[in-house]
Amino acid sequence: MTNHDRFLSRAAETMQQSAIRKMGTVLASGRDIISFAPGYPAPETFPWQEFADIAAELLKSRDPGVLQYGATRGYRPLIEAIASIMRQRGITTAPEDLLVTTGSQQGLDLVARVLLDPGDVVLVELPTYTGAITAFRNVQATMVGVPQEADGVDLAALDAICDRLRGEGRRIKFLYVVPNFQNPTGLLIGLDKRQRLLEWAERRDLLIVEDDPYRELYFEDSACEADVRPIKVDDRQGRVIYLSSFSKTLAPGYRVAWIAAPPALAMKFEMAKQAEDLLTGSLDQRVIYEACRRGVLARQLPMLRAHYQHKRDVMEQALRRELGTAVSWPKPKGGFFLWLTLPPGIHADRMIVRAIDHGVIYVAGEAFYVNGEGHNTMRLSFSAPTPERIDVGVARLAVTLRAELEAVSTAAAAGSPGSS
Amino acid sequence: MTNHDRFLSRAAETMQQSAIRKMGTVLASGRDIISFAPGYPAPETFPWQEFADIAAELLKSRDPGVLQYGATRGYRPLIEAIASIMRQRGITTAPEDLLVTTGSQQGLDLVARVLLDPGDVVLVELPTYTGAITAFRNVQATMVGVPQEADGVDLAALDAICDRLRGEGRRIKFLYVVPNFQNPTGLLIGLDKRQRLLEWAERRDLLIVEDDPYRELYFEDSACEADVRPIKVDDRQGRVIYLSSFSKTLAPGYRVAWIAAPPALAMKFEMAKQAEDLLTGSLDQRVIYEACRRGVLARQLPMLRAHYQHKRDVMEQALRRELGTAVSWPKPKGGFFLWLTLPPGIHADRMIVRAIDHGVIYVAGEAFYVNGEGHNTMRLSFSAPTPERIDVGVARLAVTLRAELEAVSTAAAAGSPGSS
Repeated sequence: MTNHDRFLSRAAETMQQSAIRKMGTVLASGRDIISFAPGYPAPETFPWQEFADIAAELLKSRDPGVLQYGATRGYRPLIEAIASIMRQRGITTAPEDLLVTTGSQQGLDLVARVLLDPGDVVLVELPTYTGAITAFRNVQATMVGVPQEADGVDLAALDAICDRLRGEGRRIKFLYVVPNFQNPTGLLIGLDKRQRLLEWAERRDLLIVEDDPYRELYFEDSACEADVRPIKVDDRQGRVIYLSSFSKTLAPGYRVAWIAAPPALAMKFEMAKQAEDLLTGSLDQRVIYEACRRGVLARQLPMLRAHYQHKRDVMEQALRRELGTAVSWPKPKGGFFLWLTLPPGIHADRMIVRAIDHGVIYVAGEAFYVNGEGHNTMRLSFSAPTPERIDVGVARLAVTLRAELEAVSTAAAAGSPGSS
Repeated sequence: MTNHDRFLSRAAETMQQSAIRKMGTVLASGRDIISFAPGYPAPETFPWQEFADIAAELLKSRDPGVLQYGATRGYRPLIEAIASIMRQRGITTAPEDLLVTTGSQQGLDLVARVLLDPGDVVLVELPTYTGAITAFRNVQATMVGVPQEADGVDLAALDAICDRLRGEGRRIKFLYVVPNFQNPTGLLIGLDKRQRLLEWAERRDLLIVEDDPYRELYFEDSACEADVRPIKVDDRQGRVIYLSSFSKTLAPGYRVAWIAAPPALAMKFEMAKQAEDLLTGSLDQRVIYEACRRGVLARQLPMLRAHYQHKRDVMEQALRRELGTAVSWPKPKGGFFLWLTLPPGIHADRMIVRAIDHGVIYVAGEAFYVNGEGHNTMRLSFSAPTPERIDVGVARLAVTLRAELEAVSTAAAAGSPGSS
């Protein structure tokens, strides 16, 4: 057999499997494992009957476009429906600003390919979304992390990092942010800070990539629509590339999302997409369009907000009950994630084997840090498991953590290298 | 508004819209234009009722996996169905050799990203598939064309080009071929030549990317299953990366295709795909799997062979009737395409405006040549239009060509720069 290593591109040499996706393999093992790992939406919330009705009508129509190749830009009525969603979010877009993508992951990948050369710098939040890290790494960009405060990116640190990098002659291209219920921390960037980020981009002559899959999922006990105002709303200079998706509000299996960007960039994204997959699934796009047109999406949203808020409550109560003050987290005001900080001696990544033994998994926080930090953090997704499973899963996590704490303190007493 | 040019990657600076996809815009203009341009399958052949039944059952099941995120590798039962299709083609594959892709276009893009650095050389047939050209160009590879004979790639030329490039210190990575009913020429690589191409790759220590979307569509009056034997069948050293698709046999709107490759490469393709779109549509994969399992695919094939063979007959008869000896073409023994050579003075690309005026479009041959040749060639797709439309379209093409010939000869007589 040929050794293929010497045929690989430099990008391929450094490609790694995502920590989140690796967890999927554990789940596939068939044991009773409660998963707080992947950010899956709750399948019981999918509008199954409406999807069945829509699919039946579309396939009965025998309209060739339903199953044929189509425009790379996207199905035109869907693009118009997206423009209308954008208007509701306060953003005026024309069809030439919009591109349908095969999930937001493709959006991130197109951004990477169109904007980044090897060695270009992307500024990211510490921690940030792993799917973005993977997309930026695959074009050999350099990611530099910016610390977050409770209301988002630390602006002083951002400026200092910017100065330092430019002083070193590095080319910075953009700042990547997830302003609403960030993956992985669940944090919400404050309104004032959003404004100041935009001013920063203008002053520094840079772009912002605003990734916004969770904005509709604000929890009404602690956030409202005004809090999730996109940075893009105030973008007069074309500094903001905005990504959003139907994956968290309708269903991810359809792989339908979008990018809104200045037309010159949108055209390049379209050309890059032509080479990537020609078009997003024709039937998928039409199903999503019909779900918008028939009001299915609008009806889903209040139900989803209540659904995930309840699950967040269950997880917070279980954590307080089972772990008390041993752990801490910022209260999620929306989205799918709770970001847990463990006692300092704990390495969440090393603890994963023990967690699997106890029948629970999570994503170790390290995977979200581009600077190697975050050993004692983890991301817990409360979105997919039932409330009952959340309770049991947190109890298992508590047992795991107590055992780990004991092992760590024993090792420390023995002076073993396992301590820190 | 910000000027975004300086934010573009070097790859993005050179991205171009595909000639074929541009033609789509013409069609969207709403005029009565008969299109021989895109290689669309005939929608009347899609198994609409079976797809409707399958979708209804899948969505009624409320099995979360139908609409949920899933493994990047692909839906496991579909991977097993693909392994079984591969066995029928004479190729033994294990699940670790296979990856489901979002159309074969994604397969080409993954191959490009995992194997090619800027400046690396890909050898391609003259002419070759534009979608491959775009994918290879987007990673800034250099494509070098190899002339084709009636039975495929000219082996002497291939060796000479290889020697020359290596003499210049260029790094060649692979040869890209479409052995069965090539897009755009419709040519079939001879069995002996397939064997010799594999020997060539072994001798030269290179890879072959074998793109095989049309193999099931051999026309029984001039080809048989033995003629479409994949190069991959005889690959003992892991030299061949094999791509195929359900787009031409079931429906392209589902975006389901696959790559078979040595496991070390398949793993890299999977990692690249993680960053590109996480997974291929979940419902799409399950629909295609069910179509395999229920025998829908197997039932389609004889019908499709007869359907496209008939359309090819209609197009050939119309061309002979309308254009006689003014044009020539190799008889397509399968697939979707007829490759037309026009009189030497004609530039098919310049003629396109006149053709649109007369209500017919095609793809000018130039788009398929990486060396700027092919001015007097065009690709005609007989797959999508009805036999009646093929007849009318060829008549319109004949009127166009006669007018163009007259204009060219007038210009030549006047010594204008339009002559050649």
